[in-house]
Amino acid sequence: MAQVNNPQDLKKLSIEQLGPLAEEIRRYILGTVSSTGGHLASNLGVVELTIALHYVFDFKRDKLLFDVGHQCYAHKILTCRKEAFRRLRQGDGISGFPNPEESEYDQFAVGHAGTSIPTAIGMALGKFRAEKEGRIVALVGDASIVNGVSFEALNNLGLVKRQLLIVLNDNSMAIDPTQGAVAKYFSELRLSHTYEDLRRTSKNILEHLPVIGKGMEDALEKIKKGIRMALPPSRLFESLNIPYFGPIDGHNIEVLIKILRAMENLNHPAILHVYTQKGKGFAPAEGNQSTYHSTGPFKINGDNGDNGNGAESATGEKKLTFTNSFGRCLLKLAEKDDRIVAISSAMCDGTGLGKFREKFADRFFDVGIAESAAVDVAAGLAKTGAKPVVCIYSTFLQRSFDQIFQEVALQNLPVIFCIDRAGVVGADGPTHHGLMDIGFLRMMPNMVLIAPANDVEMGLALEFALSIDKPVVIRYPKDFTPSEELVAPECNTPFELGKAVVIKQHENSDVTVVAYGTVLSEALLAAKTLEQEDIAVDVINARFAAPVDETIFTLAGKAKGIITVEDHGLACGFGSAVLERAALIKDGLTRPIMILGAPREFIKHDSRKRQFMAVGINADEIAKTVRQMHKSLQKGK
Amino acid sequence: MAQVNNPQDLKKLSIEQLGPLAEEIRRYILGTVSSTGGHLASNLGVVELTIALHYVFDFKRDKLLFDVGHQCYAHKILTCRKEAFRRLRQGDGISGFPNPEESEYDQFAVGHAGTSIPTAIGMALGKFRAEKEGRIVALVGDASIVNGVSFEALNNLGLVKRQLLIVLNDNSMAIDPTQGAVAKYFSELRLSHTYEDLRRTSKNILEHLPVIGKGMEDALEKIKKGIRMALPPSRLFESLNIPYFGPIDGHNIEVLIKILRAMENLNHPAILHVYTQKGKGFAPAEGNQSTYHSTGPFKINGDNGDNGNGAESATGEKKLTFTNSFGRCLLKLAEKDDRIVAISSAMCDGTGLGKFREKFADRFFDVGIAESAAVDVAAGLAKTGAKPVVCIYSTFLQRSFDQIFQEVALQNLPVIFCIDRAGVVGADGPTHHGLMDIGFLRMMPNMVLIAPANDVEMGLALEFALSIDKPVVIRYPKDFTPSEELVAPECNTPFELGKAVVIKQHENSDVTVVAYGTVLSEALLAAKTLEQEDIAVDVINARFAAPVDETIFTLAGKAKGIITVEDHGLACGFGSAVLERAALIKDGLTRPIMILGAPREFIKHDSRKRQFMAVGINADEIAKTVRQMHKSLQKGK
Repeated sequence: MAQVNNPQDLKKLSIEQLGPLAEEIRRYILGTVSSTGGHLASNLGVVELTIALHYVFDFKRDKLLFDVGHQCYAHKILTCRKEAFRRLRQGDGISGFPNPEESEYDQFAVGHAGTSIPTAIGMALGKFRAEKEGRIVALVGDASIVNGVSFEALNNLGLVKRQLLIVLNDNSMAIDPTQGAVAKYFSELRLSHTYEDLRRTSKNILEHLPVIGKGMEDALEKIKKGIRMALPPSRLFESLNIPYFGPIDGHNIEVLIKILRAMENLNHPAILHVYTQKGKGFAPAEGNQSTYHSTGPFKINGDNGDNGNGAESATGEKKLTFTNSFGRCLLKLAEKDDRIVAISSAMCDGTGLGKFREKFADRFFDVGIAESAAVDVAAGLAKTGAKPVVCIYSTFLQRSFDQIFQEVALQNLPVIFCIDRAGVVGADGPTHHGLMDIGFLRMMPNMVLIAPANDVEMGLALEFALSIDKPVVIRYPKDFTPSEELVAPECNTPFELGKAVVIKQHENSDVTVVAYGTVLSEALLAAKTLEQEDIAVDVINARFAAPVDETIFTLAGKAKGIITVEDHGLACGFGSAVLERAALIKDGLTRPIMILGAPREFIKHDSRKRQFMAVGINADEIAKTVRQMHKSLQKGK
Repeated sequence: MAQVNNPQDLKKLSIEQLGPLAEEIRRYILGTVSSTGGHLASNLGVVELTIALHYVFDFKRDKLLFDVGHQCYAHKILTCRKEAFRRLRQGDGISGFPNPEESEYDQFAVGHAGTSIPTAIGMALGKFRAEKEGRIVALVGDASIVNGVSFEALNNLGLVKRQLLIVLNDNSMAIDPTQGAVAKYFSELRLSHTYEDLRRTSKNILEHLPVIGKGMEDALEKIKKGIRMALPPSRLFESLNIPYFGPIDGHNIEVLIKILRAMENLNHPAILHVYTQKGKGFAPAEGNQSTYHSTGPFKINGDNGDNGNGAESATGEKKLTFTNSFGRCLLKLAEKDDRIVAISSAMCDGTGLGKFREKFADRFFDVGIAESAAVDVAAGLAKTGAKPVVCIYSTFLQRSFDQIFQEVALQNLPVIFCIDRAGVVGADGPTHHGLMDIGFLRMMPNMVLIAPANDVEMGLALEFALSIDKPVVIRYPKDFTPSEELVAPECNTPFELGKAVVIKQHENSDVTVVAYGTVLSEALLAAKTLEQEDIAVDVINARFAAPVDETIFTLAGKAKGIITVEDHGLACGFGSAVLERAALIKDGLTRPIMILGAPREFIKHDSRKRQFMAVGINADEIAKTVRQMHKSLQKGK
């Protein structure tokens, strides 16, 4: 590995040297991820495939598009980022996802599923028009290819009249085992043939596939016919008119190289179906692919410690994550209320539903990476009297915008959305932040938006959501719940629709901080600091972003200035809702209002704590803003 | 038809009486739509199918879910809304889409494609848990079934372990001819057999299908095998493990009834593939299905007048729609700039791209009803140096939220979104309003949001969008462009990033109206009215909602109050962006700001003009608000 820093170096190696290289890269990934955290299992699975792709193609000229993108580690190591890889996902290091700003070998900064095929189609159409020569490869997993936008793209592949290779990396796993008919089909396919079959196919490819020349397509067709299989794997793709080859062994570099060379010059789109093993080469990950999908730091030769769902603390110490808090609360409520059903989109464990699934198997539905359908299924369930709880990360819920609008908000159905990873998410970076959910959801009539500030409020928020006959959104971050001393006793009062809770109020204060969600803790810490400077600050726990408390300006005290704080974008967020309310009532805009939240910029991967600082919503920044407003109000007196 | 007011009446008729009934209903639909406007061709196509469904099922207990829903007219007529149907799409009449508020026979208020199967799955799972008996039927067109969310649902159909019938209404047309591999497959299927084959299948069903009993499934299987066809129609669905029957003639009521009776009691999901003809029974609509998909009033025995893309005037008289203005401008620019490519999502004519497609066939891509993929294809094109122009209605663009975020905004790619039907849309009602696009798009970094106020600005906005290397959104309504006397000379100045244009400014005024988009005309009309009352009002044409002009408060004049106006929801809209800006700068919130826009409510179908009045953004309402602010400012002096 020492000599290989870029694809040019790689191409200098003989095919025989590539196997040992794969092993070295695998160890290197394992070593790094065990200290930095990151996506492990999927990356261990595609090392040979990545090597083979770079050996055959020239991805300076050719284009390699990753789907989701979390499987790009070997690619990064092979494309001039070997040293940088040691600082994977660190604020001063490289991203865990493809990023064109890092390297000309990366095309799109991605992190969501299903986009590689449609963007590849666009590039193929563009290149076709410009008559450039670069080839295009989309690398997509079996879990992503069933996503709606992937299918829409497969259905439109006929637009492309030139080379476009789709490599289907089939490891039979999403983060959880892949769901749905296509997955079932793939898995029956896997079962319908043996290791011996795969070996025979490999032999066939190596012996009978010419390296170059006109007979390539015929030879491919011939070998394809020789692949013995109870189920014809091509049926699914054939019905969509897509030429198909496979399945082949994704860990046999020699075979991969031969077949890629054969397929690289086809003058039409085609699919190559490759079998890989998630976690390949690291026994604990092979055995427990879900745990090692995305992991915090761990010991290579020991137990993998509880990674707290990857939460990174910015607000407290207590070792209970919001994810676990939610899971625990829901479980308790579900025991008493059998209308409760849970819907996941390939993220059962990530959203804290693991125990719910175990205990209530017939009330748990995983639709795979299909966030749009997840919401519609929930709407149908609600229509029949169930109380569906949809658990999707904020960033992925963006895929369900239209379904939430039409099938839930417009029908006013009591679907409960539990949005994990709302706010900045730390090391995953810009593709994964949940900074737009308040905005896109509060526009819709009927929607009720809640952010619990802590573990206590999580339970109360869920109880409240179950009690009203409306769609409710509960958002919380990838973080630990605040420690007990930060949980004000006022948080124990039950939720009432559109009612905020006053936590601190002084006669002599001139500023009220209104916090939405877990940043309440930061506001309280700021207030504590300011007390020592003899600046009294009032603090309100907003609880609702829609409807905003109608009495918020009365609660805040007549003459006081207001500062809103939220772990969300400034544009269209909670503060914006407060401003709108102020503009609609008579005396609202006679008082100063300032809003704190994320600027309209993409926020880099880093720790959540440092992102809080950067965005200006930690205790220090809140205190600074209060001082500023306090000063200008004192001057005005 | 006189005796048939509800499904109970229908069931009293003999099968022989149903044919003549279908003819009567067809005439009735034709007569009504010719005077009210509405969706014609699709409704004429499903009359027999609708009758057969209501004859066999009991949709008080059973559930009928329409996909898109614009094909529900016969259903409405048969379910107690025969008289009400005369006021179709009128403010005081019934909606053109299913609406549970109108009737217990309607399940979901819908208007977007692809939702019937996933919501049906949800209802089936709910009913399954509750062990209720009602059957479920989803009626979906061949154009909708290829939509991403439909496919995600088909992939998850295996979750359902009880009856669920999907009727695939295949008329080989979306609004434009259906695009993509599945469509091609369906159309080859159609070509692979003759009318004679369909007739033979019909005969087979009538003679060999038992009416009731255990042997039903075997009999179905047997008849299925008897259907002679070059292409096996089931291949696509079989690979997804979905039992399939068809295709059968969708205009033969007797056959439909027999087969529905056979399939109604299957204890698993199944697809029935039915052939219908869009526009059936009305020669002009049969011949020109695209024109008669959605139409304004027309003469049954004469030419169909220009329906101006269904635009309903609220702002002016000039008979040029924004749609046509856009089409014309783009065509002109495309002649000079061959980087321009256009992308449509089954709405070529609706978005004004008809002539572009004719002239630049190789630069026009229609991906079918697949808004998510459309945006990703555009992103890929932009990546290769093309200037893609994506033309999708505001309401349908909600399907692309996540793709715009990740594949366009995050990459900062120069994709141009031309959003038609932004704002209230008149007779189509709540499912179709474009009242959220400013909100969801302005949250994303890099996005530039523009609203041209008139025909002149449409051209300038497009030129500007092409000149900068960023994603740009251009929104405009389903309306005519304002007449010439409402186009201020200041609108002729070229666009500059984030620069508003002052239209009217007085020394002695105390209120500035800042209008975003075509409501500028309403503001100017209001100003005219107020001048006669000796109230001087300043008027600013905002042009940009992102970035909002940084000097907007300087432009507005130092001490003046501000009123913003927009054809969009108040929440997260342009006014909200102005407020956010005011909260971020020092002197912003020392002045009164009021915002005018649509309240957070679903706005009923009606004329656009009346919706403007209801929402409070017409000239009268603006004038009223100015008077109010003027009065309170005078008091304060």
